[in-house]
Amino acid sequence: MVKIVAISGSLRKASVNTAVLKAASALAPADVRIHLFGGLGRIPPFNPDIDIDGAAPESVSTFREAVDMAHGVIIASPEYASGVSGVLKNALDWLVSCNLAFYGKPVALLNTSPRTSVAYNALKQTIRTMAGNVIEEASVLIPLPSMSITYDQIMAHQLLCAKIRSCTQAFRDALVAMHPELAHAADAGDGERGAVGMPAAS
Amino acid sequence: MVKIVAISGSLRKASVNTAVLKAASALAPADVRIHLFGGLGRIPPFNPDIDIDGAAPESVSTFREAVDMAHGVIIASPEYASGVSGVLKNALDWLVSCNLAFYGKPVALLNTSPRTSVAYNALKQTIRTMAGNVIEEASVLIPLPSMSITYDQIMAHQLLCAKIRSCTQAFRDALVAMHPELAHAADAGDGERGAVGMPAAS
Repeated sequence: MVKIVAISGSLRKASVNTAVLKAASALAPADVRIHLFGGLGRIPPFNPDIDIDGAAPESVSTFREAVDMAHGVIIASPEYASGVSGVLKNALDWLVSCNLAFYGKPVALLNTSPRTSVAYNALKQTIRTMAGNVIEEASVLIPLPSMSITYDQIMAHQLLCAKIRSCTQAFRDALVAMHPELAHAADAGDGERGAVGMPAAS
Repeated sequence: MVKIVAISGSLRKASVNTAVLKAASALAPADVRIHLFGGLGRIPPFNPDIDIDGAAPESVSTFREAVDMAHGVIIASPEYASGVSGVLKNALDWLVSCNLAFYGKPVALLNTSPRTSVAYNALKQTIRTMAGNVIEEASVLIPLPSMSITYDQIMAHQLLCAKIRSCTQAFRDALVAMHPELAHAADAGDGERGAVGMPAAS
């Protein structure tokens, strides 16, 4: 199974970024599991002094582990005042201080702000500085018709669903190309090829 | 008295940005009081849902009041991963959701990272989007010779002190030009002109 952790840069309950990521999870290829990380609101302000002896707060350790355990990270974030959401940047700053978790990590960045790409481009630059591997073919604009669209409305919107599906498919393909063992597991999971000793799924 | 609130984008005890702002406070003109805001580490992740009914956390209200009560804001921040410190951006995001506190607010931005200005320029763009008034003549590079310099070393460094002094003087002059009543109070405070009924200070 291809494991992806999804991070929304907004803590709003009605966040369109969170809604898009939930839709990505629902629309993901059969061999992909997208887990929406829900703990960003518990991550405290970044303070490297706390972290020096490895005594990171539990919320930070949980976040680092979620990123570390995933084959890839998918991010959707609002632009606040022509900048990256502070909530998201703060969480990323905690990753920098232990960048083994992030080094070479494949990242898909969704742009949900059709009228601007200032924060989107800044975020891309930050991810690259963090030695993250931005997967361009999976980093696309999701042309939301409204910034108050809901999850249900996204799921009922053919064009948006197609865009989100093509993004998750492209990300999945890039991750499988990096980890050929996932292709085998994926095929088994899809039932196209049964695992050794197991009947193929119907 | 010209009141300035200083904000450091780093929570590190040994932060050079905090040290520069402390030096700015110590080196400020006689009629300027620079108060280093120390509560950034208590400001929680920005969540507009919390704020809708005006029930902002106390740490956020304290921050907003400190900014609101000041004639100007002086900011020094590290660049983390080619981006604005998440701690600082998170605090600014809380100001955006009540931008009356910030509208037209004069801001001096100090660049303490001589080798890069990516985050510095991004921060400038954010401040402008927030309708803050960046005072260019007070927004200067502070050419720190080392990123581990201490407050005492800054205070013993003639060039740095001159740079910091010229910044605070330029900021003071800009603020006084905007608030002529401060000039009068300042003159009184300086003892150059005694307040009515009071002997001039010696």
